[in-house]
Amino acid sequence: MLSVTQFNRSFLHQLFNLAHDLRIFAQRGPLNILSGVSLASVFYEPSTRTSCSFTAAMQKLGGTVINLSDMGATSVAKGETLQDFMRVMERYSDIVVLRHPEKGAVQNVSRFMRKPIINAGDGTGEHPTQALLDVYTIREEIGTVNGLTIAMVGDLKHGRTVHSLVQLLSLYDVKIRLVSPKGLEMPPEYVQLAASKGIDVTEHSHINHVIAEADVVYVTRMQKERFADPAAAEAAKGSYVITAQTLTKAKPNMILMHPLPRVDEIHEECDLDPRAVYFRQAEHGMYVRMALLAVVAGKA
Amino acid sequence: MLSVTQFNRSFLHQLFNLAHDLRIFAQRGPLNILSGVSLASVFYEPSTRTSCSFTAAMQKLGGTVINLSDMGATSVAKGETLQDFMRVMERYSDIVVLRHPEKGAVQNVSRFMRKPIINAGDGTGEHPTQALLDVYTIREEIGTVNGLTIAMVGDLKHGRTVHSLVQLLSLYDVKIRLVSPKGLEMPPEYVQLAASKGIDVTEHSHINHVIAEADVVYVTRMQKERFADPAAAEAAKGSYVITAQTLTKAKPNMILMHPLPRVDEIHEECDLDPRAVYFRQAEHGMYVRMALLAVVAGKA
Amino acid sequence: MLSVTQFNRSFLHQLFNLAHDLRIFAQRGPLNILSGVSLASVFYEPSTRTSCSFTAAMQKLGGTVINLSDMGATSVAKGETLQDFMRVMERYSDIVVLRHPEKGAVQNVSRFMRKPIINAGDGTGEHPTQALLDVYTIREEIGTVNGLTIAMVGDLKHGRTVHSLVQLLSLYDVKIRLVSPKGLEMPPEYVQLAASKGIDVTEHSHINHVIAEADVVYVTRMQKERFADPAAAEAAKGSYVITAQTLTKAKPNMILMHPLPRVDEIHEECDLDPRAVYFRQAEHGMYVRMALLAVVAGKA
Repeated sequence: MLSVTQFNRSFLHQLFNLAHDLRIFAQRGPLNILSGVSLASVFYEPSTRTSCSFTAAMQKLGGTVINLSDMGATSVAKGETLQDFMRVMERYSDIVVLRHPEKGAVQNVSRFMRKPIINAGDGTGEHPTQALLDVYTIREEIGTVNGLTIAMVGDLKHGRTVHSLVQLLSLYDVKIRLVSPKGLEMPPEYVQLAASKGIDVTEHSHINHVIAEADVVYVTRMQKERFADPAAAEAAKGSYVITAQTLTKAKPNMILMHPLPRVDEIHEECDLDPRAVYFRQAEHGMYVRMALLAVVAGKA
Repeated sequence: MLSVTQFNRSFLHQLFNLAHDLRIFAQRGPLNILSGVSLASVFYEPSTRTSCSFTAAMQKLGGTVINLSDMGATSVAKGETLQDFMRVMERYSDIVVLRHPEKGAVQNVSRFMRKPIINAGDGTGEHPTQALLDVYTIREEIGTVNGLTIAMVGDLKHGRTVHSLVQLLSLYDVKIRLVSPKGLEMPPEYVQLAASKGIDVTEHSHINHVIAEADVVYVTRMQKERFADPAAAEAAKGSYVITAQTLTKAKPNMILMHPLPRVDEIHEECDLDPRAVYFRQAEHGMYVRMALLAVVAGKA
Repeated sequence: MLSVTQFNRSFLHQLFNLAHDLRIFAQRGPLNILSGVSLASVFYEPSTRTSCSFTAAMQKLGGTVINLSDMGATSVAKGETLQDFMRVMERYSDIVVLRHPEKGAVQNVSRFMRKPIINAGDGTGEHPTQALLDVYTIREEIGTVNGLTIAMVGDLKHGRTVHSLVQLLSLYDVKIRLVSPKGLEMPPEYVQLAASKGIDVTEHSHINHVIAEADVVYVTRMQKERFADPAAAEAAKGSYVITAQTLTKAKPNMILMHPLPRVDEIHEECDLDPRAVYFRQAEHGMYVRMALLAVVAGKA
């Protein structure tokens, strides 16, 4: 499980059905599908949410977790290679989850390993399980992905999650609307990729251009430090921040998503709006990871 | 579970009975009362003992734990609010335990949450589960709380545990003796609260004034830095430190308690005295937390 | 479980048989031998591998773990003694594993405790479970320990693991070959100990002297900072580093071991050689620790 490019529609369909079923089974009572199965969760950069989501997913399936959520200095200081360390960890466990700050690190280390490895984010590379949970959220909340108009808003240049999401959505029959400040646009290779799959994809400079037609508004964090000057950051706000006022122009059945953590891209006043699904989105992530773990362990 | 002011005698009675029973059941063999139930334990300031106690309690009941025992910089740095983070954590779990350095933080965040939350200490505010385990220890070790004379010794001004304890003991028919150096007295509001409930509460400057009549001596840590000058700290020692010599004047069936960690308020020579119950007190804490978790999860 | 001096051949025989059986049972399905049993794993200095190995071992037996893998500042800062802290931890658990930087710390604290304690390394003192897993690895990989010629290579002066290993191997009928740079020789007391047990033990300055006769080559890390001058460190390399070329002179059925982490004492080109067992050695460690935990818990 290294990249979203590994997935096809049929795999996603089965995975999402499994996630849906596991959610229902888990609500009925304790599961023991992965009883006796061990997950090593190794994070070389902190990502509390992703780490906790995998831990919760594994435990909900009856499996156990070896948690290394704060790697860094220790092993590196000793001069050991990443592959050596991971080859030990796979001896203690049945599945390995790895988060690493270097692009390609997970793919590279996977060549040395005999046990399944899941990419939990590698630098500016991929974060495939986030993209999976995003598409699963759309499916669970709206009932389908096909036929929808999906707007992505914010810093689309640096947002690893939106890059993976565009790739995954390109497997479906959707319209994509990209809304970002000047200089923070979606990299052209992703726009071209979507277009080459026949996706109707357009770029915009203000949320108002797309809010009325969007079935999904996917907002990402805009880090001030990405802007050349603070004034530009301040000016950008009005165009990309979601308020209760923004939502008055949106469809009654649309959904508002965010990968979290949020700072002020979505005002807190939106939280009680039934269309705001970002906290449920986090929960959906747990069910998708349950499904992934079950598949990877060969138990589903 | 936010404050000791939530409890009444009847609740305490049931909780303590349940803690007692769970202790016996756990000694007989593995429990699965909370099988399939997940606890998110989130500590924004380190408190190894409290964190481990909750973890042990949850595991002993057959439940699982998502442990965030060293929060701090990470999420705060990202500009996320505490309530946003906790609203994600409750999606991954069934019960949340929160420790936070800010007074009122737990109460405040609880307004945003849908799952049960347990206050594991909020700054100079409360530490309700510590007070519960203190009263439970008295009950288990002596057999009753009513009719006892309970002395609290040390820095009663800053000790969060003794503040909560006075409130909880005010539900019972006890005498309270407060022994502290000048300037480190119990805040008047707590003394008045006890008095208003009809408690016989008196203040003293030396342990010798109360040692002979006390059924319980509860010693707290005195931090040197609380004293205006080091000489005063040194001088205070003789009056508030418990030695084997001190215990010769105490009742044969009294108990000596301490919330731990201790530095030198109780000499190590007291450890073998059967009246020294502070390590058992720690164990009692685990059973009280088991009972609390079972109640909060709706399984008791 | 404090020191390798506690073990005799008969105990090792039973322990290794149990480790072997547990490995097979674990591969068949989930175990619940230690269901309801709790391990407190307390590390005052980081040792990710050892810590994860104990965690994995306990979880594989169906037990639970309270993990304190990054102790240090916190409790020490509060002025609490190690024995006080450990006496609390044993109240939360059934078995305690302790790693501490001070020689003799584990032995010392064990005098205060009522629950079983396992030494996971104390400073320049011992690391008995590492020695156990090393001997178990030889037994599992070659089928026996008796009659073998075992070479230890590298910094034998500072290597805690080789000190414990020499002691343990002295219980068997083996030949020991010690290969180290000048100034980093095995301390004479260990050489004498082996000799006094009738072991044929010799010292050498180059791996080439022993490579042809060795059934086991046990390589340890050589830390540059141990050398008086960097030039000596560089010069030493040729004599103590294992390359594919070195292995061409070795027996076809010998095994190449390393306690890990390795830096460059064994070139990566050796990893695919079937005689390189260092990653399997890490896995064997988990089974030995499973056996130890089962024995210590009184369940085997």
